[in-house]
Amino acid sequence: MKYSAKSDPILEFGLRRAQGIDGSLSASRASYIGGCSHTSNVLAGKIFNIPVSGTHSHSWVLAFDNELDSFRNYADIMPDNCVLLVDTFNTMEGINNAIIVAKELEELGKKLLGIRIDSGDLAYLSKKARKKLDSEGLDYVNIVASNDLDEFLVESLKNQKSKISIWGIGTKLVTAYDNPSLGAVYKLTALKNDKNEWEKKIKLSEQKIKINNPGINQVMRFRKNNKFFGDMIYEKKSKIEKIKMIDPNDSTRKKVFNRSYSIENLLIPIFKKGEIIYKSPSIEDIKKKLSDDLDLLDNSHKRLNNPHTYPVGIEENLFLEKQKMILKLRK
Amino acid sequence: MKYSAKSDPILEFGLRRAQGIDGSLSASRASYIGGCSHTSNVLAGKIFNIPVSGTHSHSWVLAFDNELDSFRNYADIMPDNCVLLVDTFNTMEGINNAIIVAKELEELGKKLLGIRIDSGDLAYLSKKARKKLDSEGLDYVNIVASNDLDEFLVESLKNQKSKISIWGIGTKLVTAYDNPSLGAVYKLTALKNDKNEWEKKIKLSEQKIKINNPGINQVMRFRKNNKFFGDMIYEKKSKIEKIKMIDPNDSTRKKVFNRSYSIENLLIPIFKKGEIIYKSPSIEDIKKKLSDDLDLLDNSHKRLNNPHTYPVGIEENLFLEKQKMILKLRK
Repeated sequence: MKYSAKSDPILEFGLRRAQGIDGSLSASRASYIGGCSHTSNVLAGKIFNIPVSGTHSHSWVLAFDNELDSFRNYADIMPDNCVLLVDTFNTMEGINNAIIVAKELEELGKKLLGIRIDSGDLAYLSKKARKKLDSEGLDYVNIVASNDLDEFLVESLKNQKSKISIWGIGTKLVTAYDNPSLGAVYKLTALKNDKNEWEKKIKLSEQKIKINNPGINQVMRFRKNNKFFGDMIYEKKSKIEKIKMIDPNDSTRKKVFNRSYSIENLLIPIFKKGEIIYKSPSIEDIKKKLSDDLDLLDNSHKRLNNPHTYPVGIEENLFLEKQKMILKLRK
Repeated sequence: MKYSAKSDPILEFGLRRAQGIDGSLSASRASYIGGCSHTSNVLAGKIFNIPVSGTHSHSWVLAFDNELDSFRNYADIMPDNCVLLVDTFNTMEGINNAIIVAKELEELGKKLLGIRIDSGDLAYLSKKARKKLDSEGLDYVNIVASNDLDEFLVESLKNQKSKISIWGIGTKLVTAYDNPSLGAVYKLTALKNDKNEWEKKIKLSEQKIKINNPGINQVMRFRKNNKFFGDMIYEKKSKIEKIKMIDPNDSTRKKVFNRSYSIENLLIPIFKKGEIIYKSPSIEDIKKKLSDDLDLLDNSHKRLNNPHTYPVGIEENLFLEKQKMILKLRK
């Protein structure tokens, strides 16, 4: 979504679609780390120190005798953070009312932050809104769009040269709509025996993907020319002379990493002998690290359609050891 | 899922795929109400009084020198609720080990509750397992299956005459995988004015589905011959002489309900003047009410493929009033 929106801010609007309070908090936190600029979840804002932004509801407008009254009352209490929802009755009339309020705010030395359109043809309406606002000297007023947006719709609206400058995304963000669960599992890979030695453990399965990598493993990331080139699982204590990574889905596919690549280990100890030995970075640092890391990922991996698969694999010695253990158990 | 599994119990295994603690609790509660017999979420069991059931992990098996040892240790601590996961190494050998433990339990006057298969061809393996167990006089041992099951897979495994007698379902249940959010919204439909009179409120939209039904409304359900025949939204205070329900998506489609139908109002007040005036029934009563209600729904609405749409609509007077209010605003 962040890539589709390019440099436009994304507001996370997912609270009402998340699984309860806890689910909404983790969704808001993750969305902010992933690139959203604000959340409409006030509790998440308070707990995680995420900037909060939102607009009023349609019921706010309906609670007054007319739309203009409702806008004036909202601007009165939110003069510095005022986004007016213009589609309760008629979007173009709503924009006219927002323009009246924007000019009244100007007289107080304030600026209307934006208008929000939540229904209808967002490309068409945003263009008409932009034209109208600009003709009134209000080129600083943002156009916020919402309404079941996802990365494909954002990209499409961008391609249509819509004039949306801020995106409100909820449902398709907090539920990860097209893939609503992460199929990851924990498996035991090593255990200390009576003699205090590590013993490698492996679980078999009819499904290759469910067989774990035995031993105490690390993940090595390769970097060259300020780009990431692959991540490889290897056994921490194994002696590796020549780094050869095997594609576990097709062992005939190998990749050799010579000394021209720089190397970084990705796994960091969090607990040691039952004690936490790690201090979690601030949410701002996590957000920045993710953004920096994504910059090091080639664009071919980041496009929406047919992205190039990032190379991941298993170090050759570990791969061979795993094969041996599987064959021994399957005898 | 409950319909696909027919009379077989379903265990809810979704904890690890839910959005945090809160999300998992609401998912476990909803799954139990919806027809699951047990949850593997121990906290949900404690809080909501839901029967708890589960099995051990693969890592339990790997933590012992061999599978048989691990089964014996598990049976030792769970003699009355023992389900053994047999697919860590080789499913058929796992079944043999489970049979040894089942016979040891018999000597103690206990019965092995089941074996669980979590990978591979569940139809084939369950048939082989059933045959083997039966030949050892263990026809009472259940076969529990899990592994990304959903209602379609359960139906398919039933059609293949698999011998699974208990279903463990997680991911596709707690994330409602194929439709992970409910697109419902609150809208303001009426507000008291200065003269303490109710004023009807309506929000317009380019999208018809986003326009609310104005006024203080109720939902009427029609019943005949112990079946539900339709649900109709109507304005509580309107005088209805002849009950005519209009399909809001196609106003030429109408349905008249004569006196042969019995009528029930579905909305119940929960809050009155800021006070809660409703006592939530027990989870068992909610579960039973749902099950009883579903029995009153014709089977044609409950099939997986191309279900017949249950008739819902708007009472004619409300429909006409809404049309009038929309046209007045759109002038």
